[in-house]
Amino acid sequence: MADGFTHIDARGRVRMVDVTTKSRTERMARAQAVVTMRPETFALVRDQAVEKGNVLETARIAGVMAAKQTAALIPMCHPLNLTHVKLDFFPQDDGRTLRIEAVARVADRTGVEMEALTAAAVAALTVYDMCKSYDRGMSISDIRLLEKSGGKSGHWTRDAIDG
Amino acid sequence: MADGFTHIDARGRVRMVDVTTKSRTERMARAQAVVTMRPETFALVRDQAVEKGNVLETARIAGVMAAKQTAALIPMCHPLNLTHVKLDFFPQDDGRTLRIEAVARVADRTGVEMEALTAAAVAALTVYDMCKSYDRGMSISDIRLLEKSGGKSGHWTRDAIDG
Amino acid sequence: MADGFTHIDARGRVRMVDVTTKSRTERMARAQAVVTMRPETFALVRDQAVEKGNVLETARIAGVMAAKQTAALIPMCHPLNLTHVKLDFFPQDDGRTLRIEAVARVADRTGVEMEALTAAAVAALTVYDMCKSYDRGMSISDIRLLEKSGGKSGHWTRDAIDG
Amino acid sequence: MADGFTHIDARGRVRMVDVTTKSRTERMARAQAVVTMRPETFALVRDQAVEKGNVLETARIAGVMAAKQTAALIPMCHPLNLTHVKLDFFPQDDGRTLRIEAVARVADRTGVEMEALTAAAVAALTVYDMCKSYDRGMSISDIRLLEKSGGKSGHWTRDAIDG
Amino acid sequence: MADGFTHIDARGRVRMVDVTTKSRTERMARAQAVVTMRPETFALVRDQAVEKGNVLETARIAGVMAAKQTAALIPMCHPLNLTHVKLDFFPQDDGRTLRIEAVARVADRTGVEMEALTAAAVAALTVYDMCKSYDRGMSISDIRLLEKSGGKSGHWTRDAIDG
Amino acid sequence: MADGFTHIDARGRVRMVDVTTKSRTERMARAQAVVTMRPETFALVRDQAVEKGNVLETARIAGVMAAKQTAALIPMCHPLNLTHVKLDFFPQDDGRTLRIEAVARVADRTGVEMEALTAAAVAALTVYDMCKSYDRGMSISDIRLLEKSGGKSGHWTRDAIDG
Repeated sequence: MADGFTHIDARGRVRMVDVTTKSRTERMARAQAVVTMRPETFALVRDQAVEKGNVLETARIAGVMAAKQTAALIPMCHPLNLTHVKLDFFPQDDGRTLRIEAVARVADRTGVEMEALTAAAVAALTVYDMCKSYDRGMSISDIRLLEKSGGKSGHWTRDAIDG
Repeated sequence: MADGFTHIDARGRVRMVDVTTKSRTERMARAQAVVTMRPETFALVRDQAVEKGNVLETARIAGVMAAKQTAALIPMCHPLNLTHVKLDFFPQDDGRTLRIEAVARVADRTGVEMEALTAAAVAALTVYDMCKSYDRGMSISDIRLLEKSGGKSGHWTRDAIDG
Repeated sequence: MADGFTHIDARGRVRMVDVTTKSRTERMARAQAVVTMRPETFALVRDQAVEKGNVLETARIAGVMAAKQTAALIPMCHPLNLTHVKLDFFPQDDGRTLRIEAVARVADRTGVEMEALTAAAVAALTVYDMCKSYDRGMSISDIRLLEKSGGKSGHWTRDAIDG
Repeated sequence: MADGFTHIDARGRVRMVDVTTKSRTERMARAQAVVTMRPETFALVRDQAVEKGNVLETARIAGVMAAKQTAALIPMCHPLNLTHVKLDFFPQDDGRTLRIEAVARVADRTGVEMEALTAAAVAALTVYDMCKSYDRGMSISDIRLLEKSGGKSGHWTRDAIDG
Repeated sequence: MADGFTHIDARGRVRMVDVTTKSRTERMARAQAVVTMRPETFALVRDQAVEKGNVLETARIAGVMAAKQTAALIPMCHPLNLTHVKLDFFPQDDGRTLRIEAVARVADRTGVEMEALTAAAVAALTVYDMCKSYDRGMSISDIRLLEKSGGKSGHWTRDAIDG
Repeated sequence: MADGFTHIDARGRVRMVDVTTKSRTERMARAQAVVTMRPETFALVRDQAVEKGNVLETARIAGVMAAKQTAALIPMCHPLNLTHVKLDFFPQDDGRTLRIEAVARVADRTGVEMEALTAAAVAALTVYDMCKSYDRGMSISDIRLLEKSGGKSGHWTRDAIDG
């Protein structure tokens, strides 16, 4: 009878990876998210005319605060004391696309990719929330890691040509 | 002197919209997120061979739990007592794309779009986290609302042809 | 290829059960946890001589606050606006056993068993934490539901003789 | 022996007051906090020249988000689904005092005084945090309830002359 | 008059113990919880036939996530950046008992007993939640520390014979 | 068109300050909050006769727990692993004023002023909550930093005569 259990256990054994003996080094990650909206919505954001309030400032703060909640959201993430988080917004020339970039830093045993990705994703969701009464069809894309440094795997940069 | 302040205040006045007098109705939202990975990674997920553990089950649970944290993450979201959340995974025939769909329900004064979107986004971020040691270049796209019902704006469905 | 995925999905499909159409009724649950310790530790608790501070008051407050976090801890629990939580302590005549009882109430679509159980369990863990420097071998047992009322299943009481 | 315990219990019995049978009504609370700073700091806030970023917008968002965490912070507060939160800033003519006013609303069994007070207090603490590198001696005062309506106790307004 | 106050203060003075000057060392704790259920329920868990979804995988993830919330649940626990958490399930030969074991690790100034105990307890509560519609009378027992290493008190193992 | 955006971005750029390369040192902060109430209310607190339960013990625990949530409340605060938090209550001879003092410690890259201030403020708000049914007009004042040590800025003490 216990066989069934054992089998299940062996297969699915989710766990927070043991990093106890890894060394504490300075680590950085940079990630992005892209929000696509209608030109009319884009103009409202740009002109700070969205009725719910300042979209970008709210998204920026939401991104920073979400980075600090990463280990509470992503089940197997290690809790980390982030030493820096910032978000920047890059409105694109097409007049309908907003690129969000997030940077996270720490001096610890494991990387901060998930923190940077979570910051970018939640900032994008916040843009959606602030504008959704105007433009329910907005879409969030290209959430991806752009750069990563520190730790055993060294410096990594996403290839220039994609996305 | 106070002028500067007043001006700032008038412009940026972010607030949680007042829904006190709206009526409580049954509301539903369905949203998605799409994770694109390398075929090798896709196979590992499919075969439950990812070393960190069962990717989809972890992502599913992360999505449900994140839906319940939406009002803590998205600054101007109203806290809601969700009555239902579920996530489904649709691996695509291209052998590298996983579509995640989230449904949220409530009987309250405001909609649950952000809850469904947050569930889908965090499930996608969890897939990234579980697989990132194999495939740092994975990307999350097409986070969008698919359907919404209840409330004054009635039933809304995203047009068939996109995404 | 998608077969593997589908199979996994069909089997493990965790979800927050849909209670949208259930009616809101007054619901109550009463649960307990029992902490067993050395007589010397029991005496310190009784005499409020534990160096870390007032054990029972800290446990009581921890229990009430934990009840409010139930939906954030137990993955498939529905978030609920509890209308009442209280904890009582019943030191046993054996001079080494402390029984903790928690009551939770709500007027909502689903019961509060998990809230009462979580309150009792976290209060017991707090007793352990406050006293662990004296008595590392303490044990928590008999966490169980004692009574439940409201909802479709009506009134339920644990049989008198056990525990 | 149990006497000691019983005595303790009878005295300190903290609990979340039972509001199960109270009726759901529309309730509002308005509260304030006042931050006093040096004129130089006040000018930096006014001119949005604080290096850490936009002080008032950050404080406003912090206040709204804190209101939603009230039941997690104040041990015996009931969890509530706020239907509205807003914060306003009133710089005073003395050129060194910033008054923050917070309004919270709900349609529920208990009032939202603590939510309004928590919003105002956390917004004030955020102003301190954003400016503390310039002015460590800032002080937060006059956190008080200004107005309250709904519920059995009806409409209440703080007397005009104080504060 | 202040006498009463002073007396209260001296007695109950709960505080988070000062560990500022303790040295950071590798610390580990192993704890357990035991869930007793009806044989029919045990079989449903084993066969992954519980309607709410995969019980063990959900409990495992809940346990890992709860370990990370320990300092938010247990009032006087120090916040720690856990470097490892895992849970294992040991179904017993009696066909009605499931033993859950949790391990936590950190490299810090204080131990992780509470983290391991909280992980085990919340995993057990999650098993209860997933199965409660079948078996309201389930009981959680024998939550206890099994092993502890690191720090001034060195290695500690629970004696084999006590239960 | 992007001009508007750029301008906004340059001005409001809130971020969590980068402390990655600062050195870890022992840091302490001491802060206070003062609650003013009616003499009748003060007597109830003193005599532990407040119906909701032990006011000071509840406030003390709320303060310690809030200190641990500082980075989740104050948007740009760095998450820190506090090594010590304590709160003390100083009833004043005027028979209507309660001074609350909070101390926080850490060994990290940034100070703990906000943690001490948040602990004091939330303890004061908790006193308000416990007594508000008797005395809605209570007021919280003089929340300020009293002392700070560690880090580049060295030891700082608030001048004796103010407040």
